[in-house]
Amino acid sequence: MAEIVAEVRQGAYYDSVVLMQLQRALAALPGVIDAGVVMATPVNLELLAASRLRPDVQAGPDDLLLVVQADSESKGREALSQVDALLSRRRAAATSTFLPKSLESAARTLPEAKWVLISVPGRFAGGVAREALRLGKSVFLYSDNVPLEEEISLKRAALEQGLLVMGPDCGTAIVGGIGFGFANRVRRGAIGLVGASGTGLQAVTSTIHTLGGGISQALGTGSHDLSAEVGGISARQALDVLRRDPETSVVVLISKPPDPSVAGPLLAAAQGCGKPVVVDLIGLASGTPRLGNLHFATSLEETARLAVDLAKAPSIPKNAAPEVRGYLRALFSGGTLASETLLVLQDVLHPIATNVPLRAGQRLDDPLHSRGHTVLDLGADEFTLGRLHPMIDNDLRVRRLRQEAADPETGLILLDVVLGQGAHPDPASELAPPIAEVVASGHPVIVVLIGTDEDPQEMASQLERFQSAGGLVFTRLGAALDEIMRRFVPPAQALPAQIPLELFKETPAAINVGLESFYDSMLAQGASAVHVDWRPPAGGDERLMGILAKMKT
Amino acid sequence: MAEIVAEVRQGAYYDSVVLMQLQRALAALPGVIDAGVVMATPVNLELLAASRLRPDVQAGPDDLLLVVQADSESKGREALSQVDALLSRRRAAATSTFLPKSLESAARTLPEAKWVLISVPGRFAGGVAREALRLGKSVFLYSDNVPLEEEISLKRAALEQGLLVMGPDCGTAIVGGIGFGFANRVRRGAIGLVGASGTGLQAVTSTIHTLGGGISQALGTGSHDLSAEVGGISARQALDVLRRDPETSVVVLISKPPDPSVAGPLLAAAQGCGKPVVVDLIGLASGTPRLGNLHFATSLEETARLAVDLAKAPSIPKNAAPEVRGYLRALFSGGTLASETLLVLQDVLHPIATNVPLRAGQRLDDPLHSRGHTVLDLGADEFTLGRLHPMIDNDLRVRRLRQEAADPETGLILLDVVLGQGAHPDPASELAPPIAEVVASGHPVIVVLIGTDEDPQEMASQLERFQSAGGLVFTRLGAALDEIMRRFVPPAQALPAQIPLELFKETPAAINVGLESFYDSMLAQGASAVHVDWRPPAGGDERLMGILAKMKT
Repeated sequence: MAEIVAEVRQGAYYDSVVLMQLQRALAALPGVIDAGVVMATPVNLELLAASRLRPDVQAGPDDLLLVVQADSESKGREALSQVDALLSRRRAAATSTFLPKSLESAARTLPEAKWVLISVPGRFAGGVAREALRLGKSVFLYSDNVPLEEEISLKRAALEQGLLVMGPDCGTAIVGGIGFGFANRVRRGAIGLVGASGTGLQAVTSTIHTLGGGISQALGTGSHDLSAEVGGISARQALDVLRRDPETSVVVLISKPPDPSVAGPLLAAAQGCGKPVVVDLIGLASGTPRLGNLHFATSLEETARLAVDLAKAPSIPKNAAPEVRGYLRALFSGGTLASETLLVLQDVLHPIATNVPLRAGQRLDDPLHSRGHTVLDLGADEFTLGRLHPMIDNDLRVRRLRQEAADPETGLILLDVVLGQGAHPDPASELAPPIAEVVASGHPVIVVLIGTDEDPQEMASQLERFQSAGGLVFTRLGAALDEIMRRFVPPAQALPAQIPLELFKETPAAINVGLESFYDSMLAQGASAVHVDWRPPAGGDERLMGILAKMKT
Repeated sequence: MAEIVAEVRQGAYYDSVVLMQLQRALAALPGVIDAGVVMATPVNLELLAASRLRPDVQAGPDDLLLVVQADSESKGREALSQVDALLSRRRAAATSTFLPKSLESAARTLPEAKWVLISVPGRFAGGVAREALRLGKSVFLYSDNVPLEEEISLKRAALEQGLLVMGPDCGTAIVGGIGFGFANRVRRGAIGLVGASGTGLQAVTSTIHTLGGGISQALGTGSHDLSAEVGGISARQALDVLRRDPETSVVVLISKPPDPSVAGPLLAAAQGCGKPVVVDLIGLASGTPRLGNLHFATSLEETARLAVDLAKAPSIPKNAAPEVRGYLRALFSGGTLASETLLVLQDVLHPIATNVPLRAGQRLDDPLHSRGHTVLDLGADEFTLGRLHPMIDNDLRVRRLRQEAADPETGLILLDVVLGQGAHPDPASELAPPIAEVVASGHPVIVVLIGTDEDPQEMASQLERFQSAGGLVFTRLGAALDEIMRRFVPPAQALPAQIPLELFKETPAAINVGLESFYDSMLAQGASAVHVDWRPPAGGDERLMGILAKMKT
């Protein structure tokens, strides 16, 4: 009958590759059926249980747990007795070449290395990254489980120094043709990527390659970068790099939906980059395929396809439209048009107030007075109690048009006119005169005209009369919103220090701290690298680590 | 100096068109600068204030408020003194032809009318609709501000009777070529629409027409139909009509995002309709352009364009893939791939449990054991504490594959394999054997293989080995998810009573109750219609109305 034999080593540190290899070596020993070698975290204990490997011993998250399921107890004990021999064999292999023991000595060994790749356990990673920044190196931080405050402090420091911190929890990057961490081999080309999503970047770079396109740089930011707390520091630095990089003609931005407070500045930076940007905020509906130089994709595959198409014929969007100061005021009679407008603009004209909110915080307290950028559905229930719908009765909109024109904060006015059976027989007769007044007072007015050539109001004549009044008339909402975005020019965002483009030139050199396989990968790709024989400070003892850290500062 | 003169008429009922026309007539009188004629709701009082027309009088929401701003008080009084004359002139015009006073007599006048169009104020609309259903008529219910309980009770009654209630708050419909309410004139054709969005339907039908396509039916549901409370009753009835309608070859479904409890059955009904369905859930990201017969659009314009393209060459998707019983179990190493999978499937395989939720209620309590349809990111933080990432170490996935295969609830297993630098040097060597075991045990396994032809693992060889193990291998996630949806066949949804297609045949006849302009519109389109000279029951007195309602039942 199968027996389970276990051993606990308190507070022992081994890196995960060593543990995996030890587990495999144990499982391959004679008489052993299965083995588990893990740090005894709650999840790992449950995983052992699911594999019928959970021993009846006490062990905590800092303890190494060695478990063997064997034909007999004696076979199990015999296997465990070989653990030290197996570990020392591994160590001998690792130390067969000289390895620096510290970042500082590694930097002396390979002075041209401008990057440090860090994949040590999360609780140690912040300290290593801080040391790297102190040495003036940029960081690829693969480690996860790094506290958010530590991420913020590292990124702020890097931002001031003109360095980049990709991560924590950054799985992939391609810098100057060399993959960091997990990265697919792809041809070099004109598409530069920024991503808060590791496999997202991998899937898109792979598909770009398969479709015949190529990659200039693929810069990961780590999965927490676009949180409100971190504020997208790395993403904005990376966008700035791709804006300046002469090899990049098309930019791709991939992430899960950012915090709304971060999305605005991020998309503004994307608008300001002067190159076509394919945006895939996975899980966020965009409501439009294109807005100025921003091209919105709904899947990783479409992202890759769009980028490859744009790289073939990159058209830098003209910016001929006169810039508008002040706020957008949109006065809709159609609820769905109001919603789609809000959907499209809410992240690029942030914040927007409305009486038909899509998100918390958008509700306009007083729908009778606009505040900042405002999108109104004047056909909403609160406006139609004891009053006709604005598609029949233009009175409310005529008065509101004049009210907005008199507001010094108003920049541009958008309104819809919906033709058809049942609607007002001649909306231009009532709306065109106040539009002419508003235009004369200096505010552009954009009209979205919805209807057909068979509608009783005569669409062509309506269109012509709104144009004569000075309105800019569109028959598609998307085109109107695109025009609006060409007029609201986002404010320039200066970074405290620019990252030198030299950091991204061909075949960068790097110092690796953590998983040896990432070092091997650098060498396999023809890059120069040095691997640090890293051990946790103070043997991983948290109290001692704290004392050491204090002594350094 | 301008003076404001006002009059309050307590509890008076006039329809909104009468009020608008009275306001215009007053404003046109000599010496009058501006006028307001409104029911004195709080919003209307504030709107008067914004136009400097708010008088210093007491009036409530059931009172009619007449306000005149004139050159002098006497001119104002003179204007108000003409109100009754202006109203009686209007009434005389309206009664110049004989009009039935009740729905019942209107039904006798025009027995072929199968529809009743209702646009009386919301608090009266439910009663009129109930009467219409009692007479066996379907209802187009334009009125808003109808209580939700009333909507539910009306729609449930209609569902049992095989009748349709479009609305409340339904602005538009096109039935048998005739527009109800607000509707654009469009050519007849093969595209049938269902929409919980009025201007959405108008914008899409107009664009379809402009692009050269045509409309079979456009059925509104009202804006509350897809709430959890109403449960999409009208939308599912409408989809069932378009499924059976021989003139409809392509279906369009437009709405704001439905409640998740409604989206599942609704999209299942759309899948079951056997025709291509273009879906635009405005504001909801789909994550894929296509899933079986469902085509996802991100804007109203794209919706129209897709529908027109599909109508030119409607391809009914093959259903050759063998049907799967049981649940999906997706075991990802790539977090973004897990998220995109969840995004695409969450409304069609509802509910889905996961450790990387996109919505409330999706969290899997115990990530070590799947529950129903399950999507797992095995590279999430909780799985990588003291353990290598599953892109390097396949142990966790191999064990989980076997665990899922042993679960009698498992139907189909999906996993990703991400190649590239830094990843496992030969994932097929470890994953293909357990995949072969799982396939042999009767569960299909779908593999999404991400990589390039230059990756060190040799993509072609990896692909071939996963295929040899019996896996279905895709190199694009979207294609894999599409395959999955062809295998999970949604359960058929029977309605208690089918709506006869006769209701939608060419040029329907209708009874109109409420806005006269909707009656005029029916006649202008060449349809037969009769207008009811409706007055609120008991003169609008709520207490008396309650007594009358009780006497009827």
